[in-house]
Amino acid sequence: MEVGVISAYSLKYELRTPKEVWDMIKEVTEGVIRKVDKGISEEEIDLVIVSNFSDRFGGLLHTAPLVISHLGLNSTKGFRVENACVSGGTALYLAWNFLKSGLVRNVLIVGFEKMSYLPSSMEINEVLMLAGHPDEVLVGSPFVSLYALIAAAYMSKYGVKEEDLALIAVKNHENGLRNPLAAMQKKISVEDVMKSPYISWPLKLYDSSLITDGAAALILSSEPRKYTDAPVMIRAVAMHHDHPGVFQRDDLTALRAVKKAGEEAFRSAGLTPKDIDVMEVHDAFTIAEIIVYEMLGLANRGRGVDLVRNGVTTFNGEIPVNPSGGLKSKGHPIGATGVGMVAEIYWQLRGEADQRQVPDAEVGLVENHGGTGATSVVAIFGR
Amino acid sequence: MEVGVISAYSLKYELRTPKEVWDMIKEVTEGVIRKVDKGISEEEIDLVIVSNFSDRFGGLLHTAPLVISHLGLNSTKGFRVENACVSGGTALYLAWNFLKSGLVRNVLIVGFEKMSYLPSSMEINEVLMLAGHPDEVLVGSPFVSLYALIAAAYMSKYGVKEEDLALIAVKNHENGLRNPLAAMQKKISVEDVMKSPYISWPLKLYDSSLITDGAAALILSSEPRKYTDAPVMIRAVAMHHDHPGVFQRDDLTALRAVKKAGEEAFRSAGLTPKDIDVMEVHDAFTIAEIIVYEMLGLANRGRGVDLVRNGVTTFNGEIPVNPSGGLKSKGHPIGATGVGMVAEIYWQLRGEADQRQVPDAEVGLVENHGGTGATSVVAIFGR
Repeated sequence: MEVGVISAYSLKYELRTPKEVWDMIKEVTEGVIRKVDKGISEEEIDLVIVSNFSDRFGGLLHTAPLVISHLGLNSTKGFRVENACVSGGTALYLAWNFLKSGLVRNVLIVGFEKMSYLPSSMEINEVLMLAGHPDEVLVGSPFVSLYALIAAAYMSKYGVKEEDLALIAVKNHENGLRNPLAAMQKKISVEDVMKSPYISWPLKLYDSSLITDGAAALILSSEPRKYTDAPVMIRAVAMHHDHPGVFQRDDLTALRAVKKAGEEAFRSAGLTPKDIDVMEVHDAFTIAEIIVYEMLGLANRGRGVDLVRNGVTTFNGEIPVNPSGGLKSKGHPIGATGVGMVAEIYWQLRGEADQRQVPDAEVGLVENHGGTGATSVVAIFGR
Repeated sequence: MEVGVISAYSLKYELRTPKEVWDMIKEVTEGVIRKVDKGISEEEIDLVIVSNFSDRFGGLLHTAPLVISHLGLNSTKGFRVENACVSGGTALYLAWNFLKSGLVRNVLIVGFEKMSYLPSSMEINEVLMLAGHPDEVLVGSPFVSLYALIAAAYMSKYGVKEEDLALIAVKNHENGLRNPLAAMQKKISVEDVMKSPYISWPLKLYDSSLITDGAAALILSSEPRKYTDAPVMIRAVAMHHDHPGVFQRDDLTALRAVKKAGEEAFRSAGLTPKDIDVMEVHDAFTIAEIIVYEMLGLANRGRGVDLVRNGVTTFNGEIPVNPSGGLKSKGHPIGATGVGMVAEIYWQLRGEADQRQVPDAEVGLVENHGGTGATSVVAIFGR
């Protein structure tokens, strides 16, 4: 059974949207249906999967039947899925399994998060932390501190400097300038990153992704050519897990779930990292993008930073990574994040990415992970 | 592909548990694995589905990888699902689809909710309300008010009295007396119900289910006889939806999602209501159980109350409903509720329900719904 993406839609991500969350959901639902090349009717949607992290970021629960009711009820089924920052990737994983098993023909995925629903970053962090291990929550470790442990261990082991991590931030902000959907369109230099305040040493403000409001939607089909002459086919979707607590791992510098998901996705698609033309990866913090390079087999351990330093993963490089601007510049509205990553690859492979179009992109990859890598989904797409 | 339940485990539900929520989850996870007749090893669990309503009822997110890590990591996959009070039923629906498609062989479902995590019933209600339509949330309608509208419309249309609704509460409290897992073991009379304070006319305190802490777990398998000589087979699982807002419906006295799910489940199993020996249904409020009788075809419209008045659905009747005590007496720890209902039917069909055993129970039914019926799952089980 071939499964393809037949439509994608996203709101411009914003640091603080004036929109009501239910209006955001309706807007992407209507948008993604309208964007299907040959049209689709609401009753053709068999399944709705909602991706949302916390009801504290929007004030909605039991959201799937709201969307289904808005589509006209029909006989569509639905539910919400949550796996922290990889809720969107998990929705993709479920949709893909449902479609390739023939259980359904068309799946609508709606991802959203309105993080500004809580008034302060302190309160926002208190919710985010709940995606960690209970013992980490107990001692009050926000994710920036956990990634800081990872970054410190990585820097110490491989002789990498803070300036090296900064290169990721500079690259992704540069990319975000070309993306009208990005929440922060601001060019920054290594010096800017180095001057930004420490949040948790060695990670600084500009090493960190954005607290963002956003929503995005996809339609996947097991009869993609019925709906468009240019579907983006799903070659593989793999999900793997690691121990949630950083303290539970024997190597702080690895993200094993990413490694296993990447290996399975490449094996399943019959491809290697060299076949990938464009990637969206989970740069929640700069260190994460570097380690993801290594876990996906783009670089040897400790050498990930070479890829950005040598221009391999910059916009004009061999494998541009995060042409959208990534979580760092486009933003990270949690439930929408993985959905928006797939949307970006859909546009890239259809040649619809305008100023940020990677030339001749035929094969794309999405890597979306949650917590400090307790869950990772890697998906490979082709024209 | 035949799919069966091969193990069930539940904590005693409590109005306020002293246990940490992570300890509750570990306890049911270990318990349900230990209870498999012929044993199962952790690495045989292919998929973990967590059912939990809100992180405000326990302070955990990204819970599936915690459970998977506790099982030893292996290659198990997992995610959390949420569909309000039918999160457990939705987990069953997903597990059943994954199993019958051959995608996985063994699925662990873990449902939990620690509602006492929030200090006041006012705050608890503010979270529960989010499962309604945003316009209902906007005007501040808690579920008891929405069900009160339904109850008032039903009473007016069919000439039913508050004393009639009370019969459901009396029956389910009577049943709960025999269930050591029930949160409230207290015999009540119609007079007690009538004397209890109005929460939202015509619904009183004793018409309402309990705010409860609890956790329950199931293991489902597509090779059930490998693990037990007495599996409880799943004959059908159906999920349907209705418009979430009570104001959106043309008949306040119907629960259309329940009706459609029931019809599909009976058709799919090749059975009729007369074939059912025991049922667990979603008595969030007394009026709900009466309407569910009618939606499932046990009684004509407006005549549901006759079933309890004439003893048909009481413990010694032809079709005992809620022998566990139901949400009314056993309790309603949201994410655990649907999981616990299936556990009760598993024990009933295996003849392991001790003092509350329904004699010769061979076919059982679970009806679990969410919101004011925006989502309903109906499942039928057989020996």
